[in-house]
Amino acid sequence: MTNNEVLLITIPFEPFVDNYAQLRKLQPGVEIIHYNTKDVDIVPASDWARATVHLTLYLFPQNRAQVPLLKWVHLYSGGINQALSAPLLNDRSVIWTRNGGVHAPQIAEWAVATLLAHYRQIPTLLKWQESQTWRAAEYVPRGDLLGKTIGFLGYGAIARHTARIASACGMRVVAYTLHEKNTPAERASRAFTPARTGDPAGEIPEEWYSGDLDRFLGLRMDVLVVSAPSTEKTRGCLSRERLARLKGCYVINVARGDIIDTDGLVDALNDGTLRGAALDVTDPEPLPEGHPLWSAKNAIVTPHVSGVSDEYMPRTVEILDENFKRLHAGEELINLVLRSDGY
Amino acid sequence: MTNNEVLLITIPFEPFVDNYAQLRKLQPGVEIIHYNTKDVDIVPASDWARATVHLTLYLFPQNRAQVPLLKWVHLYSGGINQALSAPLLNDRSVIWTRNGGVHAPQIAEWAVATLLAHYRQIPTLLKWQESQTWRAAEYVPRGDLLGKTIGFLGYGAIARHTARIASACGMRVVAYTLHEKNTPAERASRAFTPARTGDPAGEIPEEWYSGDLDRFLGLRMDVLVVSAPSTEKTRGCLSRERLARLKGCYVINVARGDIIDTDGLVDALNDGTLRGAALDVTDPEPLPEGHPLWSAKNAIVTPHVSGVSDEYMPRTVEILDENFKRLHAGEELINLVLRSDGY
Repeated sequence: MTNNEVLLITIPFEPFVDNYAQLRKLQPGVEIIHYNTKDVDIVPASDWARATVHLTLYLFPQNRAQVPLLKWVHLYSGGINQALSAPLLNDRSVIWTRNGGVHAPQIAEWAVATLLAHYRQIPTLLKWQESQTWRAAEYVPRGDLLGKTIGFLGYGAIARHTARIASACGMRVVAYTLHEKNTPAERASRAFTPARTGDPAGEIPEEWYSGDLDRFLGLRMDVLVVSAPSTEKTRGCLSRERLARLKGCYVINVARGDIIDTDGLVDALNDGTLRGAALDVTDPEPLPEGHPLWSAKNAIVTPHVSGVSDEYMPRTVEILDENFKRLHAGEELINLVLRSDGY
Repeated sequence: MTNNEVLLITIPFEPFVDNYAQLRKLQPGVEIIHYNTKDVDIVPASDWARATVHLTLYLFPQNRAQVPLLKWVHLYSGGINQALSAPLLNDRSVIWTRNGGVHAPQIAEWAVATLLAHYRQIPTLLKWQESQTWRAAEYVPRGDLLGKTIGFLGYGAIARHTARIASACGMRVVAYTLHEKNTPAERASRAFTPARTGDPAGEIPEEWYSGDLDRFLGLRMDVLVVSAPSTEKTRGCLSRERLARLKGCYVINVARGDIIDTDGLVDALNDGTLRGAALDVTDPEPLPEGHPLWSAKNAIVTPHVSGVSDEYMPRTVEILDENFKRLHAGEELINLVLRSDGY
């Protein structure tokens, strides 16, 4: 049986019994070993030695000799920052994949939820409800999403599903990507995309940008979604100077806090340069009590929870199943870590 | 010049100078007379006598003799309840149209904003932000909209745009309508539909229902949107008994409060039968301070503001322009009031 695999799972959670049963049903040759790394960060040498596949969040083997049979590591996260120092990340005899696309539905929903909360003034309306007074006459109209322009800094799985919903709202979509996307093949996604979600073919953006970031940021977008991985190229790229030029823009960050200059962001919000911001990620994180970002004008700040969903593990199982099939068929896996791009 | 018209506008607002200028540019033969009926509810007899078209919210002429030249009344609202006792509503020599579709983008955005606020727990997250504490560990996951079923009681302009966005979120859409919709012609909208919005051809619902309401309500929908006009047939139709059978459903009312039994709704929320509710309309309205609906479990209550938008009058002008063209071409107008259906 070439399809016999030992899947070692090291994540800070109790076993997902139902989801593991589902995976065993889909892939009967797979033996699953689970360690909750919230309590246990030491896996016995015998289990490391048997593992052919490793599903993990932040625990990694220390060298090749420890995991002689390991073929494939799947990261239980969309980003790979916590794996950058993993000893085997650059070992070409190990395939690395990540949980790209698993977060897309819920994070896109969070992004649209906060964007609509701003335009439809949900925070104000919730306060009025708490006061139990019918304050219709005080409601000052705002515009609609219809007809507005939303730009994506990075056009991965999260951005693609957000774009799908924004486009249905009648928004115009533009995208900035690390690599030029001129052909249908280049525009297509290589990430896991659940049915009825996202933009797998890359058909939604009306304009694509790459290279000169200032040209993209100069488009007078109504909304800018930061949806790029945190890499050498993106860290700090939304500097104080660049934020000051995004006049009237609503900024949404679902990527990593360090892509935006936090002090510059606080100032651009409080002086009214930015229309507002929705931030599920911050720099620093956790954001300390009393930090001025918590109370910046028109800011919604949430504690890095946009990726949390009941559907997280079910979708992870879908990716594992797809990639087990590809592994055994000798095909390229989906959701490959792009080492040279740092994500 | 057959195209010379006198448009009498009686609405409780100051003149929309820019929008009126736009309409004059589009329809050079139209003279516009504006009265702010917040301050003035009496229009001089000479202006009634000259009016050929009347744009109004709640002020109506009292008899045909007062408005000998009147051809067409356009209601500045989506519903027609306030016009039901207007003396000329049943006068077949006057065309009546309503502002259907003008509200669709913003009300659909409100509906999706509140639905996503529930699923992504925005009210809780806003409270955490106010407390300035990073409470990620307390966040209990919920499901996503992806894969869930949303049903529409009434499939007019508001429902169609909400369905468009919900479908982009990966939701399954089902619709209940007063009249059977079996053919493409029957499923098509006859209301004003801004470009890039709605479902003008009626292609989004996977299933259509009519007639037996209990069959539709028995579909185990995750979300039910009440988007039907308030008529003899719909008033009170979501009775206490029917609400009790909508187990686990999230109910959104963007129509009129009297379609739902308020006391039954409060109980179904507080005893956990319903997953939650988002209500921009209530019965009674305004909802008095201390009314139990204000604090019902998992309810979002807003003071009938979902239709308020910066784009309200610009879209009204689009309809007026379209209908002036049709009037002068001898074609059927869009957004006709359907007297026999009561909307």
